[in-house]
Amino acid sequence: MVTKHQIKVIKSLGQKKFRLQLGLFVVEGIKGINEFLSSDFELENLFTTELIFDAPEDLINVISTSDLKRISTLKSPNTALAVFKIKASEQIETGKLIIALDDVRDPGNLGTIIRLCDWYGVRDLVCSLNTVDCYNQKVVQATMGSLSRVNITYLDLNDYIASSELQVFGTFMEGENIYTAEIPETGLVILGNEANGISKDIKVNRKLTIPQFGDVNATESLNVANATAILLSEFKRRSIEM
Amino acid sequence: MVTKHQIKVIKSLGQKKFRLQLGLFVVEGIKGINEFLSSDFELENLFTTELIFDAPEDLINVISTSDLKRISTLKSPNTALAVFKIKASEQIETGKLIIALDDVRDPGNLGTIIRLCDWYGVRDLVCSLNTVDCYNQKVVQATMGSLSRVNITYLDLNDYIASSELQVFGTFMEGENIYTAEIPETGLVILGNEANGISKDIKVNRKLTIPQFGDVNATESLNVANATAILLSEFKRRSIEM
Repeated sequence: MVTKHQIKVIKSLGQKKFRLQLGLFVVEGIKGINEFLSSDFELENLFTTELIFDAPEDLINVISTSDLKRISTLKSPNTALAVFKIKASEQIETGKLIIALDDVRDPGNLGTIIRLCDWYGVRDLVCSLNTVDCYNQKVVQATMGSLSRVNITYLDLNDYIASSELQVFGTFMEGENIYTAEIPETGLVILGNEANGISKDIKVNRKLTIPQFGDVNATESLNVANATAILLSEFKRRSIEM
Repeated sequence: MVTKHQIKVIKSLGQKKFRLQLGLFVVEGIKGINEFLSSDFELENLFTTELIFDAPEDLINVISTSDLKRISTLKSPNTALAVFKIKASEQIETGKLIIALDDVRDPGNLGTIIRLCDWYGVRDLVCSLNTVDCYNQKVVQATMGSLSRVNITYLDLNDYIASSELQVFGTFMEGENIYTAEIPETGLVILGNEANGISKDIKVNRKLTIPQFGDVNATESLNVANATAILLSEFKRRSIEM
């Protein structure tokens, strides 16, 4: 069963303030929970309607479907809800391709960008301090477990750029054509806010652009997660080109 | 002002059944409305808190912010809400690159895919009959106006494939590497359902795959809109390659 206190704690984890204070976050659904169980994230508590998880017995609470509904934020809760401990970020590896987000606000966008990093083997994702929290429940759900494999660090982007030796790429409406520009296999690639793009005070070495193929009246911008997909595809494609 | 009857009609347009019955759909926000006003979609009625639109006077209703809140589905309504007439799909152009969706359910995914088509100059998007309705309000919002420039046709995909002379490409976990496969500038590219991919009964000529660069335990799939972004990028890149 779920105690009143547990319900209160779980509900409070919907807010960043309490996630930071308690050092905990929520994962829902069988697949996502299993991905975190097989990672180096530490389980705090597991609430499930079925005994199907490979986890320490004393942390498993078998609950009713109606109890699961009470603690879930999903319209259709899927079997289980787990609380994991937030992990400290590991040191950022240098000499690789790193994605940086400047003030990305939409949880769904951050979630799918984390999935993209996982797919394309990008180990480090760095986020400006005003980017949405990666332990936000909507982000966690959208990552489909990829959050357990990508090292995410929140930091001051300009401080990081100043301390890094990587070339800094940014996407803009005008810049070098991503398809024909010479791009290295390493670098820091910055993606900006959904409405305003990359902040003016961010120091970029090279401006890249994804060219439009539509007519001149076409859409003004791509969704930031789609732009990330295209950039990652271009950076990584060249490493396998024949 | 807004009459009770108008409120009832606008609210009913949240349901596909009534959109089809009345032949109307809703667009919110200055930018989106302006994009539709400058397209060949026909305005039915415009409700706005400011007189800033270039539209027939008799169709403009100046309303209060509180009235706008009553008819809007957005958390923060943006100045205006317009009702436009649904347009019949135009004939699909052959001999081009066409994107086809098989049972894509998420409005946000369809919306950003429409934006991608607009960006990459794909004039025709065909959708299986069980794909989410493109006049769904969340889809319309996510397209950021691109819906006014992409010709979307709902049809039986297998019937269409049988009648079309285009090569049919599909994305699968295993197939030709998209980065090294020889791909033409024309073709029908199918993207599948968020959870299940492309239905087994869809007849595909060539299976393509977006290779993983991460480790073997990485995420099982990409978000369908991101996969569309990468495929469109690859098909279109080759037309400009030096």
